[in-house]
Amino acid sequence: MANISVLGLGAMGQALAARFLQQGHSVTLWNRTAGKAGFLVAKGAREISSAADAIASSDVAVICLLDYTASNSVLDSAASVLAGRAVVNLTNGTPAQARATAERLESLGTAYLDGGIMATPPMIGGEHALILYSGSKATFEAHVGTLEALGAATYLGADAGLASLHDLALLSGMYGLFAGFFHATALVGSEGIGASAFLKLLGPWMTAMMGELPGYAEKIDTGRHGVNVASNLAMQTAALENILTATREQGVATDLLDPMLDLFRKRDGAGHGNEDISGVLELIRSRNSAVS
Amino acid sequence: MANISVLGLGAMGQALAARFLQQGHSVTLWNRTAGKAGFLVAKGAREISSAADAIASSDVAVICLLDYTASNSVLDSAASVLAGRAVVNLTNGTPAQARATAERLESLGTAYLDGGIMATPPMIGGEHALILYSGSKATFEAHVGTLEALGAATYLGADAGLASLHDLALLSGMYGLFAGFFHATALVGSEGIGASAFLKLLGPWMTAMMGELPGYAEKIDTGRHGVNVASNLAMQTAALENILTATREQGVATDLLDPMLDLFRKRDGAGHGNEDISGVLELIRSRNSAVS
Ligand SMILES: NC(=O)c1ccc[n+]([C@@H]2O[C@H](COP(=O)([O-])OP(=O)(O)OC[C@H]3O[C@@H](n4cnc5c(N)ncnc54)[C@H](OP(=O)(O)O)[C@@H]3O)[C@@H](O)[C@H]2O)c1
Ligand SMILES: NC(=O)c1ccc[n+]([C@@H]2O[C@H](COP(=O)([O-])OP(=O)(O)OC[C@H]3O[C@@H](n4cnc5c(N)ncnc54)[C@H](OP(=O)(O)O)[C@@H]3O)[C@@H](O)[C@H]2O)c1
Repeated sequence: MANISVLGLGAMGQALAARFLQQGHSVTLWNRTAGKAGFLVAKGAREISSAADAIASSDVAVICLLDYTASNSVLDSAASVLAGRAVVNLTNGTPAQARATAERLESLGTAYLDGGIMATPPMIGGEHALILYSGSKATFEAHVGTLEALGAATYLGADAGLASLHDLALLSGMYGLFAGFFHATALVGSEGIGASAFLKLLGPWMTAMMGELPGYAEKIDTGRHGVNVASNLAMQTAALENILTATREQGVATDLLDPMLDLFRKRDGAGHGNEDISGVLELIRSRNSAVS
Repeated sequence: MANISVLGLGAMGQALAARFLQQGHSVTLWNRTAGKAGFLVAKGAREISSAADAIASSDVAVICLLDYTASNSVLDSAASVLAGRAVVNLTNGTPAQARATAERLESLGTAYLDGGIMATPPMIGGEHALILYSGSKATFEAHVGTLEALGAATYLGADAGLASLHDLALLSGMYGLFAGFFHATALVGSEGIGASAFLKLLGPWMTAMMGELPGYAEKIDTGRHGVNVASNLAMQTAALENILTATREQGVATDLLDPMLDLFRKRDGAGHGNEDISGVLELIRSRNSAVS
């Protein structure tokens, strides 16, 4: 059993701490606003008022705060105790933020592991929770047994920015899914159809359409968007025009799907109407991304 | 066995005709550009050069063209033979277009069934294909046995616009999913990670996040976005800011997710930061949509 400190007792920090306690670890808690997690103290955790003392009292410090402004300020306040310690930062941030924090902590003699939590708080400890890690491999290896209790632990490499890169990409997929769901729900809602009722149709449909992604991925990886096209861009541009026209006619805002239509039109206008829609990738991807 | 005419031999019309032939029906084909479907003729279909003759020769005419501009012009050219016939229009369009076509055809004494195909051409006839219908109930009931061969046939009501409304809403969910996938893929692609490789992480993640939709749907239906919040809007706004900052830093276009962040910020700025993100529905839905 390990001595773990958990810094940050928002919805996620509480879920992490609860899981560590359940596993029998000794848990020290710190949060900017004290007294938020009485139920964890009732289960044997110790809450203290200094982040530095919390870190100093533990084998590994797990940080889960709103953003890097918060995690950097907490780490700054604890700078005097950081030498020789291990910090696992599960706060959401950018690759650049993760890399900058790694550099600063390594210069202080601190082993730094960055992480991205691919789960909601109720999922922590369950079979579908995934946590991505990158940075100090030694820290990952030393604590993977403990960390596995939170969710499947995947180590992506020594570059501390890799967990964030993958995390943000996965989240962007999710926000697209949610945006589509919101648009769809608002559209049927305009004729009095409820979101829960409509989800009975939408759920299986979305699952079926996930089946299109491997084909698009292959085209994106090869940069060849004109092979085996069953649903061409020109036809899909017409369908998306219909969606946005109907959305407007129903008094629903078109905001969430306007940019997709703009990209479809642009790519169609450039002479790719008989190709697949995966070709819109060419309009958004970075210049230095490789295509085989 | 029925006499069926199929008008439109694009990717979808060909798939429909092939399936009807496979079921042993007698199939007459028409397409604006002739000679596109030799393989169907080889299987016993008859291709003719007049849309009116094709309709006149069949018990039921199935239309699948690019858009309503196309289907209206074909129906206009066949107006003299339409009285007493049954037309099933599977062309993608808006509810208003479907309703206008229904009205015009009913005035000519034609039974009109509108439909929305929720499947790609390779899915036609398979277990995951779904086709939504609305309009003439008698036509649906007379031909449902034939139509079921294409995919599960769901009748939504006498209002011819209902199939289109549901179709476009399902498609908008799909385009959100695809937009998220494109964004995610471009983001990891900026560091040389391939789309197919990344899909191994993204696929299960998207499936897991589909599990969030029933909770959002319930909040949308009740209009109460502040109950049981595990992932609050303020935190998710910070995460989405990180996504778009990192996207920009990686040289990838932020277009597809910009409007989602705008809506998050607007809702957060209006004092709903501690509620669920489902509250953004209130910013896009039509004024006359009901909340229970
Ligand atoms: N919830 C999820 O579904 C989920 C999923 C995956 C990843 N995450 C990530 O986990 C992290 C925490 O999320 P959460 O859901 O726990 O958020 P939350 O419930 O909003 O909690 C935010 C936490 O950050 C602290 N904080 C904010 N600003 C601070 C500052 N300037 N200095 C010190 N502490 C500060 C808060 O302290 P106070 O209590 O004093 O305000 C609180 O402990 C985020 O990076 C989030 O992206 C969350
Ligand atoms: N493919 C899919 O995945 C899919 C899925 C669900 C629904 N749909 C819907 O099915 C319909 C057909 O799609 P598709 O994939 O078959 O498209 P497609 O392969 O692009 O074929 C378009 C068809 O429309 C005809 N057409 C276009 N403009 C016309 C006009 N002005 N007058 C007469 N004919 C015209 C074309 O004739 P020519 O051969 O002479 O050009 C061709 O037969 C669309 O409404 C689409 O939204 C398609």
